[in-house]
Amino acid sequence: MTSPDQPRQPQSTVAEPADPQLLAERCAEAMLAADRASAWLGIRLVSVGPGRSELTMTVTEQMLNGHRIGHGGFVFSLADSAFAVACNSYNRSTVAAGCDIDFTAAVYGGDELTAVAVERYRRGRSGLYDVTVRRADGVVVAEMRGRAREIPGSLLSGDLL
Amino acid sequence: MTSPDQPRQPQSTVAEPADPQLLAERCAEAMLAADRASAWLGIRLVSVGPGRSELTMTVTEQMLNGHRIGHGGFVFSLADSAFAVACNSYNRSTVAAGCDIDFTAAVYGGDELTAVAVERYRRGRSGLYDVTVRRADGVVVAEMRGRAREIPGSLLSGDLL
Amino acid sequence: MTSPDQPRQPQSTVAEPADPQLLAERCAEAMLAADRASAWLGIRLVSVGPGRSELTMTVTEQMLNGHRIGHGGFVFSLADSAFAVACNSYNRSTVAAGCDIDFTAAVYGGDELTAVAVERYRRGRSGLYDVTVRRADGVVVAEMRGRAREIPGSLLSGDLL
Amino acid sequence: MTSPDQPRQPQSTVAEPADPQLLAERCAEAMLAADRASAWLGIRLVSVGPGRSELTMTVTEQMLNGHRIGHGGFVFSLADSAFAVACNSYNRSTVAAGCDIDFTAAVYGGDELTAVAVERYRRGRSGLYDVTVRRADGVVVAEMRGRAREIPGSLLSGDLL
Repeated sequence: MTSPDQPRQPQSTVAEPADPQLLAERCAEAMLAADRASAWLGIRLVSVGPGRSELTMTVTEQMLNGHRIGHGGFVFSLADSAFAVACNSYNRSTVAAGCDIDFTAAVYGGDELTAVAVERYRRGRSGLYDVTVRRADGVVVAEMRGRAREIPGSLLSGDLL
Repeated sequence: MTSPDQPRQPQSTVAEPADPQLLAERCAEAMLAADRASAWLGIRLVSVGPGRSELTMTVTEQMLNGHRIGHGGFVFSLADSAFAVACNSYNRSTVAAGCDIDFTAAVYGGDELTAVAVERYRRGRSGLYDVTVRRADGVVVAEMRGRAREIPGSLLSGDLL
Repeated sequence: MTSPDQPRQPQSTVAEPADPQLLAERCAEAMLAADRASAWLGIRLVSVGPGRSELTMTVTEQMLNGHRIGHGGFVFSLADSAFAVACNSYNRSTVAAGCDIDFTAAVYGGDELTAVAVERYRRGRSGLYDVTVRRADGVVVAEMRGRAREIPGSLLSGDLL
Repeated sequence: MTSPDQPRQPQSTVAEPADPQLLAERCAEAMLAADRASAWLGIRLVSVGPGRSELTMTVTEQMLNGHRIGHGGFVFSLADSAFAVACNSYNRSTVAAGCDIDFTAAVYGGDELTAVAVERYRRGRSGLYDVTVRRADGVVVAEMRGRAREIPGSLLSGDLL
């Protein structure tokens, strides 16, 4: 962060790529580099494109609840990060307004989870994204639908720290 | 966990309290004692009763995303834990089938969040719970609605490790 | 409705009441007088206040599906009308952005349904409303949560035809 | 309906087709023939297959609210009927447990709406279906996600009247 007496400089050195695929990759890199939360949970980028993403996370012992199954909050966190990467892939800052999630199967310690986010539509400042989370054996463990809303700012301009 | 060569003993010493309030307290203690995930996130029980609960969590630096605001997954996790404590307060094992969450304000590092879960209805094996998450300044940061489903088993019988 | 050759007059004669309760009543009257759909379904206002409403509807034979139970669309319609009346009670035009509904019991021909809508919060241009639909025997048949969004315009200014 | 003194006969004359596509068509015919509500709203079947359906409906003057736009309840009704046809395409009676709907654009009198329902998954007695509703100009007006639950009975056995 800049201090009050040192105004933030225009960060003209970061050019926005014209290619949508390259732009999506740059945005994902910028987001995840600054996202301590995703790093803490061990969330890793597999792939990204305009309006879509694929992320992965291993279920650790610390993510298990009293039933010895994964706490829903971490499955949600992975899905939410995939949603965030997908809806921020155009270099326009976008946040989650809300999400609906269905838990369809349990996850266990050591499970390798993969979340695939796809854009259902985007118009004006609003968008809708579907995220499917699967275990390594292919079983769907959660289906999430996220509502996105654009806010002022962009990712590559340095609005992200 | 018991080791394979030491079979689990019938835990007849744990009697189910007849008083609903006392039962709810025993269930919450059993759940949270076994819930590594909630402990890892620093989630603490404030109060519990039949079909309701109040839990609290401090937003740490590790929970912040690239916008320097709390990653939605941790707000969800707190709400989900409150939901779990409320819907398991009758000593009948109950899991989350799905949740809808609306994010209504941002949370920041150091914020003390409180989640209050109340039962909207419960009939047969199904239930619906509303969870409101607030910052210390009283601002609502999330409204969650969770769908609960009973599964075989109980909490005080030793089904929880 | 005004005819094409009779341009709409500025309706300056409709003053906005200062009393919130009276304002809510005026808004509900204006809305329902212009709402052909609610009239067609036989939806009637029971009561209204700032941020809340109660509406009722009788399940007719025409609302039954092949299982001889009420088609979910009509239970939703009643809940949606109650939501609309509640979120428009401040004389600021407000529309539904989305809704989540849980169907919790069946309805039958002749059932008298009552929908009660209450405001969960409202801030800026957004609001969240909970609607509970009950049969005459008190059984809850649906729980809906609606997301409201203000749009330009007001109800008593003649924006409603 | 059979009268009390005339017990219902086993309706062995209705054989269940072995071909999944033919079975889906038979189920849709049986459902819609008995569904007064869908008929009342002018809902018509375009196509059906295992786990999917396409239905259409014209927005009439009676479906308009005070803003002269379609009441959300009728858009929901069309989506709900498409969901019902898709999730009942296996000749196992299935009902809606709940739905989430996002309204993304307005509909007007005379609009021809088309709802396409696709199965996202089905396992055990549960299923999840996505329904997209479009105007004739291709604009998406609603995205619905429905949660289905199987109940005892089948459609071609005469459980539907």
